[in-house]
Amino acid sequence: MSSTVPGPNRHPLVLAAGRAHPELAKNVAKELGIDLLGVSAYDFANSETYVRFSDSVRGMDLFLLQSHTMPVNQWIMEQLLMVDAAKRASAHSVTVVAPFFGYARQDKKSRGREPISARLIADMFKTAGADRLMSVDLHTAQIQGFFDGPVDHLWAMPILVDYVRTRVDVENVTVVSPDAGRIRVAEIWASKLGGGPLAFVHKTRDVTRPNQSVANRVVGDVQGRDCVLVDDLIDTGGTIAEAVKVIMAAGAKSVTVAATHGVLSGPAAQRLTECGAREVVVTDTLPIEDDRRFDNLKVLSIAPLLASAINEVHSDGSVTSLFDGNS
Amino acid sequence: MSSTVPGPNRHPLVLAAGRAHPELAKNVAKELGIDLLGVSAYDFANSETYVRFSDSVRGMDLFLLQSHTMPVNQWIMEQLLMVDAAKRASAHSVTVVAPFFGYARQDKKSRGREPISARLIADMFKTAGADRLMSVDLHTAQIQGFFDGPVDHLWAMPILVDYVRTRVDVENVTVVSPDAGRIRVAEIWASKLGGGPLAFVHKTRDVTRPNQSVANRVVGDVQGRDCVLVDDLIDTGGTIAEAVKVIMAAGAKSVTVAATHGVLSGPAAQRLTECGAREVVVTDTLPIEDDRRFDNLKVLSIAPLLASAINEVHSDGSVTSLFDGNS
Amino acid sequence: MSSTVPGPNRHPLVLAAGRAHPELAKNVAKELGIDLLGVSAYDFANSETYVRFSDSVRGMDLFLLQSHTMPVNQWIMEQLLMVDAAKRASAHSVTVVAPFFGYARQDKKSRGREPISARLIADMFKTAGADRLMSVDLHTAQIQGFFDGPVDHLWAMPILVDYVRTRVDVENVTVVSPDAGRIRVAEIWASKLGGGPLAFVHKTRDVTRPNQSVANRVVGDVQGRDCVLVDDLIDTGGTIAEAVKVIMAAGAKSVTVAATHGVLSGPAAQRLTECGAREVVVTDTLPIEDDRRFDNLKVLSIAPLLASAINEVHSDGSVTSLFDGNS
Amino acid sequence: MSSTVPGPNRHPLVLAAGRAHPELAKNVAKELGIDLLGVSAYDFANSETYVRFSDSVRGMDLFLLQSHTMPVNQWIMEQLLMVDAAKRASAHSVTVVAPFFGYARQDKKSRGREPISARLIADMFKTAGADRLMSVDLHTAQIQGFFDGPVDHLWAMPILVDYVRTRVDVENVTVVSPDAGRIRVAEIWASKLGGGPLAFVHKTRDVTRPNQSVANRVVGDVQGRDCVLVDDLIDTGGTIAEAVKVIMAAGAKSVTVAATHGVLSGPAAQRLTECGAREVVVTDTLPIEDDRRFDNLKVLSIAPLLASAINEVHSDGSVTSLFDGNS
Amino acid sequence: MSSTVPGPNRHPLVLAAGRAHPELAKNVAKELGIDLLGVSAYDFANSETYVRFSDSVRGMDLFLLQSHTMPVNQWIMEQLLMVDAAKRASAHSVTVVAPFFGYARQDKKSRGREPISARLIADMFKTAGADRLMSVDLHTAQIQGFFDGPVDHLWAMPILVDYVRTRVDVENVTVVSPDAGRIRVAEIWASKLGGGPLAFVHKTRDVTRPNQSVANRVVGDVQGRDCVLVDDLIDTGGTIAEAVKVIMAAGAKSVTVAATHGVLSGPAAQRLTECGAREVVVTDTLPIEDDRRFDNLKVLSIAPLLASAINEVHSDGSVTSLFDGNS
Amino acid sequence: MSSTVPGPNRHPLVLAAGRAHPELAKNVAKELGIDLLGVSAYDFANSETYVRFSDSVRGMDLFLLQSHTMPVNQWIMEQLLMVDAAKRASAHSVTVVAPFFGYARQDKKSRGREPISARLIADMFKTAGADRLMSVDLHTAQIQGFFDGPVDHLWAMPILVDYVRTRVDVENVTVVSPDAGRIRVAEIWASKLGGGPLAFVHKTRDVTRPNQSVANRVVGDVQGRDCVLVDDLIDTGGTIAEAVKVIMAAGAKSVTVAATHGVLSGPAAQRLTECGAREVVVTDTLPIEDDRRFDNLKVLSIAPLLASAINEVHSDGSVTSLFDGNS
Repeated sequence: MSSTVPGPNRHPLVLAAGRAHPELAKNVAKELGIDLLGVSAYDFANSETYVRFSDSVRGMDLFLLQSHTMPVNQWIMEQLLMVDAAKRASAHSVTVVAPFFGYARQDKKSRGREPISARLIADMFKTAGADRLMSVDLHTAQIQGFFDGPVDHLWAMPILVDYVRTRVDVENVTVVSPDAGRIRVAEIWASKLGGGPLAFVHKTRDVTRPNQSVANRVVGDVQGRDCVLVDDLIDTGGTIAEAVKVIMAAGAKSVTVAATHGVLSGPAAQRLTECGAREVVVTDTLPIEDDRRFDNLKVLSIAPLLASAINEVHSDGSVTSLFDGNS
Repeated sequence: MSSTVPGPNRHPLVLAAGRAHPELAKNVAKELGIDLLGVSAYDFANSETYVRFSDSVRGMDLFLLQSHTMPVNQWIMEQLLMVDAAKRASAHSVTVVAPFFGYARQDKKSRGREPISARLIADMFKTAGADRLMSVDLHTAQIQGFFDGPVDHLWAMPILVDYVRTRVDVENVTVVSPDAGRIRVAEIWASKLGGGPLAFVHKTRDVTRPNQSVANRVVGDVQGRDCVLVDDLIDTGGTIAEAVKVIMAAGAKSVTVAATHGVLSGPAAQRLTECGAREVVVTDTLPIEDDRRFDNLKVLSIAPLLASAINEVHSDGSVTSLFDGNS
Repeated sequence: MSSTVPGPNRHPLVLAAGRAHPELAKNVAKELGIDLLGVSAYDFANSETYVRFSDSVRGMDLFLLQSHTMPVNQWIMEQLLMVDAAKRASAHSVTVVAPFFGYARQDKKSRGREPISARLIADMFKTAGADRLMSVDLHTAQIQGFFDGPVDHLWAMPILVDYVRTRVDVENVTVVSPDAGRIRVAEIWASKLGGGPLAFVHKTRDVTRPNQSVANRVVGDVQGRDCVLVDDLIDTGGTIAEAVKVIMAAGAKSVTVAATHGVLSGPAAQRLTECGAREVVVTDTLPIEDDRRFDNLKVLSIAPLLASAINEVHSDGSVTSLFDGNS
Repeated sequence: MSSTVPGPNRHPLVLAAGRAHPELAKNVAKELGIDLLGVSAYDFANSETYVRFSDSVRGMDLFLLQSHTMPVNQWIMEQLLMVDAAKRASAHSVTVVAPFFGYARQDKKSRGREPISARLIADMFKTAGADRLMSVDLHTAQIQGFFDGPVDHLWAMPILVDYVRTRVDVENVTVVSPDAGRIRVAEIWASKLGGGPLAFVHKTRDVTRPNQSVANRVVGDVQGRDCVLVDDLIDTGGTIAEAVKVIMAAGAKSVTVAATHGVLSGPAAQRLTECGAREVVVTDTLPIEDDRRFDNLKVLSIAPLLASAINEVHSDGSVTSLFDGNS
Repeated sequence: MSSTVPGPNRHPLVLAAGRAHPELAKNVAKELGIDLLGVSAYDFANSETYVRFSDSVRGMDLFLLQSHTMPVNQWIMEQLLMVDAAKRASAHSVTVVAPFFGYARQDKKSRGREPISARLIADMFKTAGADRLMSVDLHTAQIQGFFDGPVDHLWAMPILVDYVRTRVDVENVTVVSPDAGRIRVAEIWASKLGGGPLAFVHKTRDVTRPNQSVANRVVGDVQGRDCVLVDDLIDTGGTIAEAVKVIMAAGAKSVTVAATHGVLSGPAAQRLTECGAREVVVTDTLPIEDDRRFDNLKVLSIAPLLASAINEVHSDGSVTSLFDGNS
Repeated sequence: MSSTVPGPNRHPLVLAAGRAHPELAKNVAKELGIDLLGVSAYDFANSETYVRFSDSVRGMDLFLLQSHTMPVNQWIMEQLLMVDAAKRASAHSVTVVAPFFGYARQDKKSRGREPISARLIADMFKTAGADRLMSVDLHTAQIQGFFDGPVDHLWAMPILVDYVRTRVDVENVTVVSPDAGRIRVAEIWASKLGGGPLAFVHKTRDVTRPNQSVANRVVGDVQGRDCVLVDDLIDTGGTIAEAVKVIMAAGAKSVTVAATHGVLSGPAAQRLTECGAREVVVTDTLPIEDDRRFDNLKVLSIAPLLASAINEVHSDGSVTSLFDGNS
């Protein structure tokens, strides 16, 4: 097996990865039918990071995969160093593949004197020498505008839907949004699952009665239904666990949680174990260590999607189903 | 009256304006207690725009006011030309004041192969030589991240609230959001008006029953209430007029519409006249020609807010109430 | 018919156009033997422009045609938005084709505190993502220096000369320059038409007697001659119409006017109809609506020249006759 | 005497100079009433240039004077190195003062595959860290557009006119342009000298008869007149000397030559000595070594103009008479 | 006590710090006689960093202190985020103060396909919005050239020398360099300590006999001497500890180790405790946690030097003794 | 013979050269089996440089060779102008080949208020449009970090070693470094020559006794040995000639000097002739005029190395032996 993909493009495709999520890197390489490019990466005694490519990248289209998992700053910096090394080693192009894009939730100034961190991260990748970004389900679509160049924005929903369809009685499904702001996504889910009803949870106080104590409630028909609760990411799991409880309390038959990014930080495992969800489904855009896993967690592989997208980008193809519904 | 503001800052404050909204420019200048800087601006026979400052801007802190009203491209280009002229004439700093920032709604790729126009506009002002942007109630907060420099994001709500408070029975008010996505803003309104109840309109189909015909409905208590329907802008008025009708149909005593930006394009005047709203309140961030005005329209002046913010910026002050709640 | 040109270049050639001059776009595409790339372009109610490519441009060499005709700001902005969309959609290269380059006459500061608009336009295309510019007969050659990248500067004279040669008695031709500053161009014309005499018009006051009233006069031999009056563009037609009258008054047998760009704004049609010219010959770098046409106007197609140049650029050819006498 | 100028501007004005034209530097400093900043500048054995400021430039507004005289590349590079040193030594601003801007005549591509050298020079000063350019009578005004920042374009004509007025019988003056392209400048001269007649020389072949041998001739009334022949620069003197001979042959009483820049390279001294001019008047924007001087050469000092302009720029003044007729 | 320094500079000096080395920040603020600017800085559950300034920085000269200690990537990223926040909050200038500049040892490609990390870090600070860098004893002087702007390079030797002078018998001192490459620094030390002899350690194999086993040895006179072993930093302590042993083995009376940066990572404490050095002297450019301290370690405060330099920079002063021997 | 290299890369390789070192250019072209691209290059009377490519470079990978020999500023500027011309003539890529990189020794600020000239030169090539640099044995490796892009750093040692091996008795060789700072290079030499002993010269005062008069001395075994004295460049020859004398005085049988760059400025020829060296070996990275040559000088051709590297870069190969030990 070679480390490059031959074809009409004279710039061979190579895939390299940082240390954040080696399993995903291996799986993407396998899907592409190539070996990962060799990379030496380690930290010096004082924690400075060292990286070096073991083989030539001259004239190649390099895809640089790194999951922005904990510790985020460490892995972003490592990826930046790899971009710099690739640029200086005469790679033909460098695509930063960040299945989960770190700092995406810091995409605006909520208050004065804050940074706009997501813009800064995008600018730093540009400065280091990145030609293009690839990511999955960015927290807000505006982040595409933070990078001065093409952004391939992938869409994990088909993977999640295909799995969930096998786990619930499609005739009896209600798709639930954890808050009023994400109903549009839930609508698409409902449509893909066959057109069942929607519901959503008010996760703040009763909006029609401000200044009262918070009390989540479900809007929509969940009684006796197999509910699918959908979101883009699960971080500490607080919102999701609360929503599951409320839905179950409202008489649901079951709740299946589906989200693209399983951040699962802090108390997430415990909360999700205890909340009453039948199953929590995420993809492996982020690595999930054993101590953050739990019994009813199902992790789907994002590797086939990334591999397809990388192939499309490299061959200038245009399979629109991959890219956020568009090419 | 001089055209500059004296003070500890050795770079005098000057205000110049394009042709889009001369009345606003005059009012801001008046609030600042200065004359507008003279500007020659006209179009050649083939429609190319010409601009020139009549007086020196050497070493000055220039604030360049232009409303991005119709025809938007014309006025954006005129403002860009003025920025270039100011840079080449040795202005110490150039602040682009765009009370309504054109193309703000094109802030992401909704589909493939679209531009991200708001980022492009921000980049062009940077290229022309702008040091800073000032705007009022940007459509999404992420747009601040599109400009590589400071953005003074002003907040018109206090102006609108102060007026509305005089027009409704605060004891009987319900604040209504025209859709589920803007409830947070409505919450702040409700809080400022004394803590009454909230409501919102589902402007899409019954979200709990996808694939059915659209039917707006009100969630929350509006019967017999003086309702205040709030949004950031009113363009063709379709959404707002529909919402007013639904609220009235739900038994409201009255509906007052409040929005920062009165775009009021196309059929807006007719729709808003006929929808049953008691009053439609906007600010004059955009000029409103006579044929786009209507009987129950109230236009509040944004000039005092802009003048205060310009003064704060020039004197490095920090009146946090002006700037989106922060300095 | 496909929308791409196959060949040794692995980046297919595609041609897309804005709305300014659809007929020219169609003709260039036809010359290239391809279909125009589909483009959705329209204006929202508040006059903001929307553009989107209907088909993929990934990996392609995109030529983006737009004539900077009235309203100039509208069409420049539309082209800028298209460049941004192409960059973000991963086009391999973007060439801005502006047969008439807007604001070319604002290429210097004639007085203090003016912009240098042509430089600003060039910079904005660079900022948006343009790799290269292509234009025909720029007003001054220095404008090539305003763009930080390659400029393909085409030369329409051969097209005009070929036509004019069929319309005048080459043995009896005098080429006339409308002012003293463009005699070098007239010389090349004269040479191409067989070496006849030159003349020029003093369009200002008698230069040997300043501070006197203006009185145009012809220098050179025009009596009984078929005169060809040449310029780069005709805008409102004032200078040209005056020159025709003076030449005729000096005893010319006929005057044929030839210019690359038919701006023909304002009173141009009337002036040129009434001035006594036998024929006015321009190319269609700009669209000419029916109400700006007149009986003795002849419009030659620039499409073959643009198509040839596009092909040369795409295949890295070097037909020097196209490019301002050089490759 | 101090090396800084005190005043309301908290960033002191300092003047430093390269080695190209030390006398001019001394004179400008004297006009400003300050000492030149100490500079160590020499060449290593292998001809690499070394520069260093002897005193601090922290926080200062530094004006860096260098005449782009022979060897041009040497002096441009020295000035670039000084700009870099100033930027890294924390100067508040750096103004490149190039009384004669090298490579200004290479401002366009006359043929394919040439550089646009004047743009490159402007970009290199920007890259090195220059904030602003100051120059006198640029060869073409478009060069201002090559620099991305303010350009102070000074105008030497008043100095030349004031001197010439004392040397000719103003009642009997004819101003002559050496070719048809510079008549506008001659017009302004004529107006300033009291409104006498104009003339110009066709320095190419008889334009009304192409393809014939070259024969300069005078257009306009010069017989018995005191002629003033004006141009922006005199390089090898060929064109000017020819023009003088033709004017004298046409019966002029005398010819005084006036130009801003005395390049006077190669055979200039001999040609101008022998051509019959009564006097050749230039400014000292460039140094004129003894072997390039000749009897009837008059060199006027440009130092007062430069000093005034530097003072104006530093104090954000706006004496419009200095700056190409504008501020 | 205020958080700003008043004075002729209208842009007040403010000092803010990240979380890496709070004690140093407090000490520098105390030296400056001001309070630290309030900063909120913490990490989210998934390790993303959040920062915000508690008070306004509009129009201020902000000095942003962060020690690049372990974990280096975390603290560099935090400082980058603070720079971005400051730029967007309209700070007049931002100076990155990095007493120890991370990644300084990765200043070149030792092998192919490595990054040049120090250049990347410098570029990222520029991208984020830094105007200037300040650092102490950079590993190689060339790093100043990696930043496109002023670098204030401070010099800790006077602090170290002043202390050491009180600890050794100056009459009996030999200054020792740990390898042949740093003899020049040792020479300056020797000169400052009164002119005693020098020595150095060959830390590689006997250079006159390659391919033999390594055997450090001392060149120079150390027998019975109080030796001072000097270096720029002590990381894991291996080289230094070996050198101490060799010097002692060569009959030295005592060895005092002096270095600017006490990285002291991994086994450093143990090695230095056991090596036989009388005292190890470093400054506190980096924090030294208790478990990395040891009995014979002496930590000198760098705060007075940083405070003086900050004051000089802010007031455009020029105390040359601070800045690497120059201003 | 063609001027391009055919192959899988669709962008033909072309080689062009400035006027600094025509013989090297010819030799490199010959090694590549192609003709040099035609270039017109000359100086105008006032010393401004003119360049133009005689043939098309559209779509080509252009390698632009110039030796930065005396006068350095002249040849650097000429090369910059050529880069600009190539960029504007649509070259696909431009690689600056500077076998000796001018100003490399000015790579840091030794004192305040100096430029960092090597960084400035690197930035100017980037600004002009260079995509990549190629050079041989840069003075310090950090200079690679001054260019924002790939740098191909070639290594001349194999060429020098191969020759020297034929000239000395390898069994009896001692490699000598002219100072303690370059011992690592001498070690590699010794290893390549078979593992003989090393020596070095203290060219400053006895480092163990500061403040004493300078007295060079040899450390290591040279008596009766064939010594090879190695350095990166020989400029005025002072250091090298001194070292030769000291080595001979220490009883060496012979001294052969080997260095990559033969700058040989000023008194170098005389010094090296008289110093007693058996042979001085350099490469022709710089031209050596007859008056700078001397009897025992041997000049090896660098052309094969440059040609190989150019071929590797163009074909995206990776012969690691060429590139500083790495690809």
